[in-house]
Amino acid sequence: LLTLIIADAALETVPESLRDHTAVRRSAASRGKRSDEVLLDRSYHHAAMLRLKDHSRRGRPDLVHFALLEAAATPLYSEDRLRICVHMFGGKAIFMGEQVRLPRSYLRFVGLMEQLLQEGKVVSGGRRLLESVDMDFGGLVDRIGASSVVGLSRSGRPSGFEAVAEDLASEEDAALVVGGFPRGHFTAETASCLDQVFSVNRRPLEAHVVIARALYEYETQVLGK
Amino acid sequence: LLTLIIADAALETVPESLRDHTAVRRSAASRGKRSDEVLLDRSYHHAAMLRLKDHSRRGRPDLVHFALLEAAATPLYSEDRLRICVHMFGGKAIFMGEQVRLPRSYLRFVGLMEQLLQEGKVVSGGRRLLESVDMDFGGLVDRIGASSVVGLSRSGRPSGFEAVAEDLASEEDAALVVGGFPRGHFTAETASCLDQVFSVNRRPLEAHVVIARALYEYETQVLGK
Repeated sequence: LLTLIIADAALETVPESLRDHTAVRRSAASRGKRSDEVLLDRSYHHAAMLRLKDHSRRGRPDLVHFALLEAAATPLYSEDRLRICVHMFGGKAIFMGEQVRLPRSYLRFVGLMEQLLQEGKVVSGGRRLLESVDMDFGGLVDRIGASSVVGLSRSGRPSGFEAVAEDLASEEDAALVVGGFPRGHFTAETASCLDQVFSVNRRPLEAHVVIARALYEYETQVLGK
Repeated sequence: LLTLIIADAALETVPESLRDHTAVRRSAASRGKRSDEVLLDRSYHHAAMLRLKDHSRRGRPDLVHFALLEAAATPLYSEDRLRICVHMFGGKAIFMGEQVRLPRSYLRFVGLMEQLLQEGKVVSGGRRLLESVDMDFGGLVDRIGASSVVGLSRSGRPSGFEAVAEDLASEEDAALVVGGFPRGHFTAETASCLDQVFSVNRRPLEAHVVIARALYEYETQVLGK
């Protein structure tokens, strides 16, 4: 079983310091919510976010949405050969169940994440679709019990998608770690938990593109072409 | 130069027969538009659409949005080695310029497409970003001047992404045709213009997954790993 971890993901509820900002309260109110219940989103909270530490890496649920849809659309996931997790900026892990159909609509995805982060789980028909747990990245890696943790980053050792996939497929329970942020590198905390880091392309690639390519190559290794 | 054509795409303005439907008028009005100006969208117009011919293949701009974002996120496109076109259900072609950054927000994408279909083009800074032309699929293929037109469909001859990519890369100006609809096969009109049709996976794959994989394999052929 391969585990994909979307790490340092630009997904979080509005942090406390911004909850009284007028634009933040107004955008929450327009959706009938309080500002501590909504996701931080650069497209609505850009001005307010300028005060935040690391603001250029935060508040991009759309990027996490695409990355998750990409991973969940693979045969690998639909055949239960892939487990999908997110580790959020600020230290929460999200575990996705098997055969979960995420909403393709961004607004519905945001609503689902807000529900998850408030209630700690999303259950449907007695089945746990999503679970969120306060947990640092090391704790997530421990819980997964991965035999090898491989990160993809332009700061890593030059390699290619195919070689990385062969490497992952040679392990019983490997974890593949892809950054869920728009620019920059893994945080020091995340980087310290990676056994190996590879750079798979000379050019910067969006997270969903990296995920599509890495999972495709891994899939050809384990499910055939 | 490779051309990607997203064919029989589930993207169109609300057809005349549905423009007076209450739900359609209401959803258009909520965006300050008339019902002949907005895109047909299953998530708002589901009930009204049940009257429509081929309704299960229509009204999915979200699917076309993902497919376009996937293609435009490749190094292939950013290095001007890929031309991207859409052929819409009902017979209009969309030509995308070079280095166009499409909106990641679905609502902004819908607004952009509505503007394009009304005005016939979208220009920014003197540069034509998008153009829409009334044209059947054969006309689009002629205008592209493709030396070989290759479709991907589960009804095609069994092959693989890598083999298809090698085939495309061996041509000077090949066109790759991927269906832009949620289920079913190419329309007869589209199918009649394809030189070859390959099935690249035993499982049904979403358009954006097919595009990610096919363009990745093509890219490794022409730009290296």
